[in-house]
Amino acid sequence: MSKGEQTRASILARVAPLFNQQGYFGSSLSDIMQQTGMEKGGIYHHFKSKEQLALEAFDYAYAILDQRIRAMMAGKKHAIERLYALLSYFQELVDDPPIAGGCPILNTAIEADDAEPALRDRARGAMDELRATVQRIITRGSERGEIRSGVDVETWTSVMIAALEGAVMLSRLYQDTVHMHRTITYIRHCIERDLV
Amino acid sequence: MSKGEQTRASILARVAPLFNQQGYFGSSLSDIMQQTGMEKGGIYHHFKSKEQLALEAFDYAYAILDQRIRAMMAGKKHAIERLYALLSYFQELVDDPPIAGGCPILNTAIEADDAEPALRDRARGAMDELRATVQRIITRGSERGEIRSGVDVETWTSVMIAALEGAVMLSRLYQDTVHMHRTITYIRHCIERDLV
Repeated sequence: MSKGEQTRASILARVAPLFNQQGYFGSSLSDIMQQTGMEKGGIYHHFKSKEQLALEAFDYAYAILDQRIRAMMAGKKHAIERLYALLSYFQELVDDPPIAGGCPILNTAIEADDAEPALRDRARGAMDELRATVQRIITRGSERGEIRSGVDVETWTSVMIAALEGAVMLSRLYQDTVHMHRTITYIRHCIERDLV
Repeated sequence: MSKGEQTRASILARVAPLFNQQGYFGSSLSDIMQQTGMEKGGIYHHFKSKEQLALEAFDYAYAILDQRIRAMMAGKKHAIERLYALLSYFQELVDDPPIAGGCPILNTAIEADDAEPALRDRARGAMDELRATVQRIITRGSERGEIRSGVDVETWTSVMIAALEGAVMLSRLYQDTVHMHRTITYIRHCIERDLV
């Protein structure tokens, strides 16, 4: 990495948790300067606008989460084990989040849905990948006989992600991870009953 | 209502959907002036700060939702019918939201959890009431024999609200109400299997 690339990466590493906690609109230029220890000119030398910085900070945060999901699924071949690994990932997202502020897809989806189309598209892209992961696990699991046949893949994907992201919201709102624990316990119960 | 009270109410009615769509931090003073057709001085004559305006706009939005939930439950005595009314309320929240921008509790929870304690406390209070509604329906339903005994009320409350709020997020992110439809269909299936 060149010096410039290093500086760029270091800005993103510092700004990603700021945006994830305070939001795109809630993070002022002075917050960004304080967080990075850089002047305005230095930041805008590397990123042409606050929006550009936010888009790349989102990509940075999402790449870390994506690596985390892959690491937690590594070595797990059975579809049910892979779904449980995804539940553990969401548990970790509230117990010990890889990026301070919780789930950047959730945070960005809520903030950007009506207000910031470029960021909303980033959140959609990341959510598309998360949904594709769940769909793939269930579809392949059915093909291999690890999951019963006839499961409505689209319904399971929407409901599982809705419940887990909603549980992130509740756990963070109350600063109490019990909402995630309960949600995961119930989803495991549904998996055992409807999928196995 | 005095003239001053009327002006105050009219400001809240115009600002509540603005905050619900763009967020507290995403709504600038010039957005607020444009939305209300008033000058800065006129707005600050009625509200001492942007935070005060946001807190009261949240209360205004929540009061409308609360009335809507009560109206949809009116006349429904049986616990299961009341739970289905709550599902219909969430369906309406994405099909034809009473306040533009979706669910103000969800939006405020996500934006304020790390960044704005006074607003976060408002979102917690509203969520407390929504949770209490679900808890009451299940507890009374159990006492009356409309819901089977031994149901874990806390788990049901957390999971049902998590799934529904998460489905609001997905439906708004994709501008596609199918995520809410699927989530409600699956919750009905769980209600019929686990509660009845």
